[in-house]
Amino acid sequence: MVVRFQVAVSLDGFLAGPDQSTQNPLGVGGEGLHAWLVELDVWRRLQGESGGVTNASSPVVEEAQSNVGAYVMGRNMFGGGPGPWTDDPPWTGWWGDDPPYHAPVFVLTHHPREPLPMQGGTTFHFVTEGAGVALARAKEAAGDQDVMIGGGAKAIQQYLAAGQVDSFELHITPVTLRAGERLLEDVGDLRLEQIRAIGAPGVTHVKYRVVR
Amino acid sequence: MVVRFQVAVSLDGFLAGPDQSTQNPLGVGGEGLHAWLVELDVWRRLQGESGGVTNASSPVVEEAQSNVGAYVMGRNMFGGGPGPWTDDPPWTGWWGDDPPYHAPVFVLTHHPREPLPMQGGTTFHFVTEGAGVALARAKEAAGDQDVMIGGGAKAIQQYLAAGQVDSFELHITPVTLRAGERLLEDVGDLRLEQIRAIGAPGVTHVKYRVVR
Repeated sequence: MVVRFQVAVSLDGFLAGPDQSTQNPLGVGGEGLHAWLVELDVWRRLQGESGGVTNASSPVVEEAQSNVGAYVMGRNMFGGGPGPWTDDPPWTGWWGDDPPYHAPVFVLTHHPREPLPMQGGTTFHFVTEGAGVALARAKEAAGDQDVMIGGGAKAIQQYLAAGQVDSFELHITPVTLRAGERLLEDVGDLRLEQIRAIGAPGVTHVKYRVVR
Repeated sequence: MVVRFQVAVSLDGFLAGPDQSTQNPLGVGGEGLHAWLVELDVWRRLQGESGGVTNASSPVVEEAQSNVGAYVMGRNMFGGGPGPWTDDPPWTGWWGDDPPYHAPVFVLTHHPREPLPMQGGTTFHFVTEGAGVALARAKEAAGDQDVMIGGGAKAIQQYLAAGQVDSFELHITPVTLRAGERLLEDVGDLRLEQIRAIGAPGVTHVKYRVVR
């Protein structure tokens, strides 16, 4: 089992553009980070759709999505605004009734909430005891499979800084956002080794191992 | 003829680490940006040395160095400290008697100085009339060949922001510097297209075209 993450980044290092909102969760210009992804057949099938293309990105996405036994994500990634959870109506994430996780998802939050089972095997668990506890619970749930840190930037940075990430893959896009949330900031003194790089239409996939 | 540049960058987007000095021109940690390069046979031969390895980076470096008719570089890249030029002793660059340019090099400076011919076909010209004039003179000198913006960050940013760069190649290294000179900052609203990506030991080479 490894603890890993994979994210699309702009060439100037941002995970999301400025002015993130419920309508615009990746911020201004941030949707460009996923232009290479949303046209893929493998991605459309994950959303229950069809059509789309197959190219050098397809096996990368398939590999990244496979063997994941549990997820950890930050509160902003799950959404529903800051502060206590409300029931009017209850926020159940950005992804509809059948989220593309199909595994337990541990959401970092300061506000307790009952577990939220969704269709397709996804259950959101809300963890108020901190990032360490969330990761321990995700590892236990994942068994032999990997734990994926789903995002956002703060959650990833927290686990990188704590030395708890084994490897990660960046999908480096030819987008410049100029402002927003940077990925590699406040992550401490990181020693990395490049595992592989794959060029694909509109994106370069590079995988790194964290050296301890 | 195209106007282009190529630079090694850290994964967190820096061209050089903090605390650049004459002894440490790439700043603290910055020498790690060139670890993949200095071991290459093609690079050692450019320095008049021998030995070294040949790998997927070798043709990238050979291609990048070829067909360059003239260079433009900033004062800090040429070195010799800020302020007027002194004769005691005169600063002739970081590269010894036979710099690896073998072509005219136009140095952006506020301080006039006579042209400085070196061995091997390199002549440094000092341009006080601004970045536009320096580029025009470099284009004229280059003829059908390309103009390379040699660096540093400020010179590259200036030409990117002015829409005067046609394409560039980043050598993305698994190094994090955490501070220093960022490459893609103050470059305006840049629209890019990925041309190609090549994974090599310890580095990923990605080439972009600037879309106008």
